[in-house]
Amino acid sequence: MRRSSRQIHIGPVAVGGGAPIVVQSMTSTDTRDAAATVAQVRELEEWGCEIVRVAVPDREAADQLRAIKAGINIPLVADIHFDYHLALQALAAGVDGLRLNPGNIRDPEKVKQVVVAAKERGVPIRIGVNAGSLPERQAGDERSTAERMVALALEQVRLLESLDFDLIKLSLKAFDVPTTVEAYRRMAAAVPYPLHLGITEAGTPRTGIIRSSVGLGILLHEGIGDTIRVSLTAPPREEVRVAYEILKSLDLREHGPILISCPTCGRVEIDLMGLAERVDDALQGIRVPLKVAVMGCVVNGPGEAREADVGIAGGKGRGIVFRHGQVVRTVAEDELYEALMDEIRTVVNELER
Amino acid sequence: MRRSSRQIHIGPVAVGGGAPIVVQSMTSTDTRDAAATVAQVRELEEWGCEIVRVAVPDREAADQLRAIKAGINIPLVADIHFDYHLALQALAAGVDGLRLNPGNIRDPEKVKQVVVAAKERGVPIRIGVNAGSLPERQAGDERSTAERMVALALEQVRLLESLDFDLIKLSLKAFDVPTTVEAYRRMAAAVPYPLHLGITEAGTPRTGIIRSSVGLGILLHEGIGDTIRVSLTAPPREEVRVAYEILKSLDLREHGPILISCPTCGRVEIDLMGLAERVDDALQGIRVPLKVAVMGCVVNGPGEAREADVGIAGGKGRGIVFRHGQVVRTVAEDELYEALMDEIRTVVNELER
Repeated sequence: MRRSSRQIHIGPVAVGGGAPIVVQSMTSTDTRDAAATVAQVRELEEWGCEIVRVAVPDREAADQLRAIKAGINIPLVADIHFDYHLALQALAAGVDGLRLNPGNIRDPEKVKQVVVAAKERGVPIRIGVNAGSLPERQAGDERSTAERMVALALEQVRLLESLDFDLIKLSLKAFDVPTTVEAYRRMAAAVPYPLHLGITEAGTPRTGIIRSSVGLGILLHEGIGDTIRVSLTAPPREEVRVAYEILKSLDLREHGPILISCPTCGRVEIDLMGLAERVDDALQGIRVPLKVAVMGCVVNGPGEAREADVGIAGGKGRGIVFRHGQVVRTVAEDELYEALMDEIRTVVNELER
Repeated sequence: MRRSSRQIHIGPVAVGGGAPIVVQSMTSTDTRDAAATVAQVRELEEWGCEIVRVAVPDREAADQLRAIKAGINIPLVADIHFDYHLALQALAAGVDGLRLNPGNIRDPEKVKQVVVAAKERGVPIRIGVNAGSLPERQAGDERSTAERMVALALEQVRLLESLDFDLIKLSLKAFDVPTTVEAYRRMAAAVPYPLHLGITEAGTPRTGIIRSSVGLGILLHEGIGDTIRVSLTAPPREEVRVAYEILKSLDLREHGPILISCPTCGRVEIDLMGLAERVDDALQGIRVPLKVAVMGCVVNGPGEAREADVGIAGGKGRGIVFRHGQVVRTVAEDELYEALMDEIRTVVNELER
């Protein structure tokens, strides 16, 4: 069961309160280069990104927010550290969300100015505490890293609440998966606000995809999380693709095709790996939800893939093509790929009609 | 907390009962080709595979088991369907484990022969029920797929127990992650035997790594699972690499280096992605556990990566190198990679001493 959270809106996109789990990413371009940033956001939109965040490290970056906002179609979140001027400037430029830890803006009067301006515009603020930016542990402090993260985030929450502001979203990211899971569980029990999930510094795709899938998977499967960002040292579109695959694996979102294919084993008598890779590549362009199976042998073949919309199972130099569990054709091995793609086109046309 | 399970041994390798979670894979070679199979197993051993399974579809494959067993250094499991002769032949050849569903060998007398032979040799049997090979659902059967999988597996368990055999391991694999999780949870509560985890037909690495990480991650984090196989339509060594990354992400096993690196963001002023990829590649050859951080900026840099053994953080065209949280050098951007690798070699030498 999903945790019930308060709903907020980032622009028109609902987050929390039973809304579909929202996929977001962050640009890797220099925000001061509005054209490059807009181009990257548009690519992210193509991949299904639903909210985008940009770093706003200085005045020159903030100056470009209006142009960026005008060039894109999804809500824009400004990521700001320390400088309240930048937050005010971002709000004036029309951003849809702020990521900002009010505690980092020391002066209460300045915090108040930002909060008042955000409230006027109905712009939510995400409080994001990362394990790495915790203050150094005091002697005698026996709390876990997760407990310290939650305590720091709650201070920030209380600060916003004391200014009568409740358009709050929270994140508690760490590199360590068990720490991240513990922090989000504690926070989920402590406040009603929606949660933004992520594993931070997860690394290159080789390992980062695995760490993010494990961490976000655990939390999402227990109903925690309203929006997710997969952080990778990789082009941001890869973050979006991985986010959807995680959500699809838990039946939480539909997004384009699902490919079911055998592991390799000594029973396989066709070039399964090559075939599966070719099919996988071809499916990248398809946007409708569609289950496709590429199976190595007829023993497990149709059985395992019974629920696929369309599939193939190989035998000795030949194979069968099936649709909705029924065998529709038998073809030679070298015709399997084309025969499958024919079937896929037919089913896609049906679905798109 | 880990589920407490009964311990069995596959050859010398302990599975269950508090033993480290064992990583296994399956060969993709033709088992009838002993030389190719031995070569692949040896490559898997290099990557840290601890148990290997081979398909034994026919007599010719079974004939090679003795030669394969003689050529490899890790325990060998024979995967057999239906034919009890093959099981007897595999046991005579000295395999360390069987994967076999006794219910598929219809004749009780034949099942008994296999079980007696396995018991004499102290060879465990894995019962493996896959969602796709369930019999068709009867009208009026309201049970979930997971419940039906568990019920079928329990029938097989009772059959072995009735023959006074308890060297049992179980797997309950499905493509659907929530189904797999439900099946293992139910089984974990029903029997004391160790569990072999896997998501079946998880697909090509592009999506299969994600599905396996989510599914196995959820179960492992709640303490379920004694050995794992990541099934991918990919070279088996990739299955082993991914298995270790999943276990490392949950602090369940140590295995070679861990790379911490920033997601890309507009604050980064060095070629972080290129640098992280180069470091990641260089780390593939290292076997000692070592935490390495590659960070994009000094703001988050040393803070986020404080717990790394060694790391770098970039700035404007230059960067710092740190070891155990202390800055040890400042170098130009184009020297960062070499400076980091120098530090890594130093730390690896210390660890290997």
